Amino acid sequence: MSDYIDLHGNPQSFGDTEAQREVRQNDRDYVFHSWSAQNLISPMPIAKGEGVRFWDYDGNEYLDFSSQLVNLNLGHQHPGLVKAIQEQAGRLATIQPAIANDVRGELAKRIVEHSFEGARSVFFTNGGADANEYAIRMARHHTGRQKVLARYRSYHGSTATAITMTGDPRRWANGVIDANVVHFFGPYTYRSEFHAETPEQETERALQHLEHTIQLEGPSTIAAIILETVTGTNGVLPPTPGYLAGVRALCDTYGIVMICDEVMVGFGRTGEWFAYQGYDVKPDLVTFAKGVNSGYVPLGGVVISEAIHETFGDRAFPGGLTYSGHPLACAAGIATFDVFEDEKVLENVRDLGERVVAPWAAEMVAKHKSVGEARGKGLFWALDLVVDRETREPLVPYNAAGEAAAPMNAVIAACKQAGLVPFAHFNRMQFAPPLIIGEEDLVRGLAIIDEALTVADGYYVGA
Amino acid sequence: MSDYIDLHGNPQSFGDTEAQREVRQNDRDYVFHSWSAQNLISPMPIAKGEGVRFWDYDGNEYLDFSSQLVNLNLGHQHPGLVKAIQEQAGRLATIQPAIANDVRGELAKRIVEHSFEGARSVFFTNGGADANEYAIRMARHHTGRQKVLARYRSYHGSTATAITMTGDPRRWANGVIDANVVHFFGPYTYRSEFHAETPEQETERALQHLEHTIQLEGPSTIAAIILETVTGTNGVLPPTPGYLAGVRALCDTYGIVMICDEVMVGFGRTGEWFAYQGYDVKPDLVTFAKGVNSGYVPLGGVVISEAIHETFGDRAFPGGLTYSGHPLACAAGIATFDVFEDEKVLENVRDLGERVVAPWAAEMVAKHKSVGEARGKGLFWALDLVVDRETREPLVPYNAAGEAAAPMNAVIAACKQAGLVPFAHFNRMQFAPPLIIGEEDLVRGLAIIDEALTVADGYYVGA
Repeated sequence: MSDYIDLHGNPQSFGDTEAQREVRQNDRDYVFHSWSAQNLISPMPIAKGEGVRFWDYDGNEYLDFSSQLVNLNLGHQHPGLVKAIQEQAGRLATIQPAIANDVRGELAKRIVEHSFEGARSVFFTNGGADANEYAIRMARHHTGRQKVLARYRSYHGSTATAITMTGDPRRWANGVIDANVVHFFGPYTYRSEFHAETPEQETERALQHLEHTIQLEGPSTIAAIILETVTGTNGVLPPTPGYLAGVRALCDTYGIVMICDEVMVGFGRTGEWFAYQGYDVKPDLVTFAKGVNSGYVPLGGVVISEAIHETFGDRAFPGGLTYSGHPLACAAGIATFDVFEDEKVLENVRDLGERVVAPWAAEMVAKHKSVGEARGKGLFWALDLVVDRETREPLVPYNAAGEAAAPMNAVIAACKQAGLVPFAHFNRMQFAPPLIIGEEDLVRGLAIIDEALTVADGYYVGA
Repeated sequence: MSDYIDLHGNPQSFGDTEAQREVRQNDRDYVFHSWSAQNLISPMPIAKGEGVRFWDYDGNEYLDFSSQLVNLNLGHQHPGLVKAIQEQAGRLATIQPAIANDVRGELAKRIVEHSFEGARSVFFTNGGADANEYAIRMARHHTGRQKVLARYRSYHGSTATAITMTGDPRRWANGVIDANVVHFFGPYTYRSEFHAETPEQETERALQHLEHTIQLEGPSTIAAIILETVTGTNGVLPPTPGYLAGVRALCDTYGIVMICDEVMVGFGRTGEWFAYQGYDVKPDLVTFAKGVNSGYVPLGGVVISEAIHETFGDRAFPGGLTYSGHPLACAAGIATFDVFEDEKVLENVRDLGERVVAPWAAEMVAKHKSVGEARGKGLFWALDLVVDRETREPLVPYNAAGEAAAPMNAVIAACKQAGLVPFAHFNRMQFAPPLIIGEEDLVRGLAIIDEALTVADGYYVGA
C-alpha cells in the first residue's frame, strides 16, 4: 500500500526526497505567500492528510490542533464531504448566481433553519473577509448610516473594509482604507481595560464603555457593531456573562445593526451550530465561512434577518460576485450538515469540551505557573501564558517577533517536536482541533501541550 | 437514460414540475441574490449543463453565449476538469496557505511560465475582486504611494477597494469607500471622449488625457494604474493601437505600477493566454480569476513581477486569506492548462474569431441599421446598438431600467426565445461563448443573434 498519491495520480512512499524537493522548489520559485516576507519563510511540504492528522514527505505525523486555519472542523478527507464534492463535480460544478440552483437553495435552507428566529436568507460569498464586507454593506444601506464599530483584538479578514475593521497588527501596515471604522474595547477580564475584577464587573464596564463610544461617535452615524461572538485568533475570548445581550440592547436602543462574525466559531466550534446560540442573543446579521464546509471548497456567507432582507426587497442590493452560492462549495456544505447529524458532532464537542478539556485546563493552571489563565468553550481554548502571575506580564510582548518571541517559539517547537501543531498566537497557547476528534487523540494532544508548558515554566520569573 | 441527476443523486426526467417547484421555492425562500431587489427577480431553475449548453427543468435548451458570467471558458462539465476535481478531492481537498503544496506550486509554475517575461510568482485569491484588492495593496506598498487611477466604464469587483475602482453604475450606491481612487477616461473611438475620429487619434488623445490626469493628481501620489486589458462588461472595448504601450511608457516615466485586470479576458478569451500578450506590453501585475479554471472551483490571483515580489522579500506582505492557493481550485487550474493544450483551445478561439465572427460582425453592420459598430477579438464581441447612426444615440440610455430598457429587453428576449443567452449590457448585444465551441454551434448562435437584431432595427429612427 502506498503512503500517499502524488499530483500525477501515482502512489508514492514516504521518504521520497526528489518529490519533496520538487514541491518545495516550485513553492519557493512560484508561490507568493500570505502575510509573509517571501525570502524569510520555508513552507513545510505536506504529503497527506487524514482525519485529525497530516504527514510530511518524510512520513512525520502531526496532530492538527489548529484545524489548519481553524477551518477543518470535520478533519482532513472526511469521506462524506469528499463524496459530496465528487458527486456534485459530476452533476454540475458551477452555475452563475442569478440562476435558481438546487444545492444552493438546499444549503441556504439548512443554514436558515439552524439560525436565529427571524433569520430570512443567506447571501453566499467566497470566504469570511467578503462575508464581512457584504454584511457591512447591508447594514449601511439598511440604516442609511456609514460608521462601523469594531473591536480591538479582533480579526475580520483582509480585504479593504475587513482589514480596516480588524483590531490586531495585521491592520497596521494597511492604514485606514475604509474611513468609517472606529475601534472600541471588548471584555477581557484577565487583562481588563476597565480595571474590573470579576467577569460581571467586566461586562458592566465594557457595556458602559461601548455606550460611551456610541454616544461620543454619534448614534445617528453608526450603522453596525461587528464582533466575533467568541474572539478567535486574538485570544479565544468568550463573552463575559450578559455582554452579548447588553450589546443587543444597545443596538436596539440606538438603531444599530448587530453583526456576529462567526467565521471561526460557526458550525460547531463551541458546541453549538452558531456560537451566539450559547449566549441567548439574536444578531441581525451573522457571517460565516471555514466550518460551513471545512474549507474543502472556498465558501462564506451572511445570514440575514427578515428586516434587512426586506430592505433589499424592492431596491437592489449593490454588491455581488461570480461565485456566490457556488454549487460545488454548497454541496460540501450540505454534506457538512449531514455529517454533523450522523456523527453527533455537536454532542462530541460539548462532551469532550466539558468532560475532558475543561478539567484538564484547570489542572494546567494548577500545575504550570506560566499558565496565568485558561479559557475556552467546546473545542476552542487558550492558555494565557505569563512570566509573573502577579503582574500578568505575558510570556512574550504583544506582537513580539524575532528574539523577543523566542520563549513562545520554544513552546511551539516543543509541541511540533512531539508531533502536534497548535493554534498559538502571541503569548497564548491556543488550540482548536477538528471537531470529530476522538477522546484518545484529544488526550494525547493535551498531554503534548502539558509537556510543552514546562518549557514556558522555564521562563517564569514571578513568585 | 435520465435527463439529469437531482441533488439526491437520483436520475430524473425533464418536465418534473415538483422538482422544479422545490428548487424555485428554496431559492425564493432562502437565497439572497447578488445585485438584485429580492422581490423583483425570478431566478430561472437550471437542471443540467453540458459543453456550450444548459437546460431548464422543462428540457428547454440554451446556447450559453455568455459563458455564465464570462467564466465558463471550457464549457459546462468538461471531463478533464471534472476528473481533476474528483481526483484532488480524493487526494487532499484543502490545506492551509503556509504549507508547500504540490498542486499549488504546479499551477503557479504554469501560470508564471505563460506570463510576461520577468513574471516571478503568483498570489492566489478566491476570485477577481480580491485579486484586484491585493494587487492594489502590493502596488501601494511597492511605491509607498496611495492613489490608484482606474477607468470609467470598467468593472473590477465588488469588495470595498474593488467597487470603488469600478467605473460603472454598480459603484454608485456604494459611494467612495477607498478614498484614494481617481477615475479617468480610456479610449472608445466610437463614442470618443476626446472628439477623435480615428483609432490612432483616439490613442494619442487618450494618452494625453491620462498624462494630464497624472500630472494634475500628482505623479508622486499615484501607486498604480489599473485597467481591463480589454474592457469587459462595459462594452468589450479592445485597446486602440498603441494605447497599452503608451500607458506602459507613462507608468515607466512616473514610477507607477501597471496592473492589467484580466479577470474576464485571461485564459484565452481573446485568443492569447493573457490578452496583454496580443498588444506587446509587459504589465507589472496581472489579476485573473474566472477562466483560470472556468470557475469550477472559486479561484483568482495576481501574477507578480520580480521587482514587486522582491519588495516583499524581506518585509511581510500585509494581506492574506485562508483559501489562498486552494488545492481543489488549483487542481482544476492545472487541468485547464492541459485541456487548452490538448484541445488547441487558443487556436480554436483565433480561428473562429477571425474566420467566422469577424466577417459575420462586418455583415451585421452592413445588414442591420441598428448596429452602429461591431468590435471584438477572439470570442469576445460587442455590437453597439443605436437608434440613429448619425447621432449614435444608443438603443437604450446608459443604465436604462424598466420602460426605458424595453427595446434592449426585447432584443434579449428574442435571443432567449430562440434558445440563446447573450452577454448583453445596456445598449450592447455582447457575446462570449465557451472557448471550446464548435463552428456549427457558433454559426447557429450567430444566426439567432442576427435574427434578434431585426427587433433592434424596429426601433431605428435615423436615416
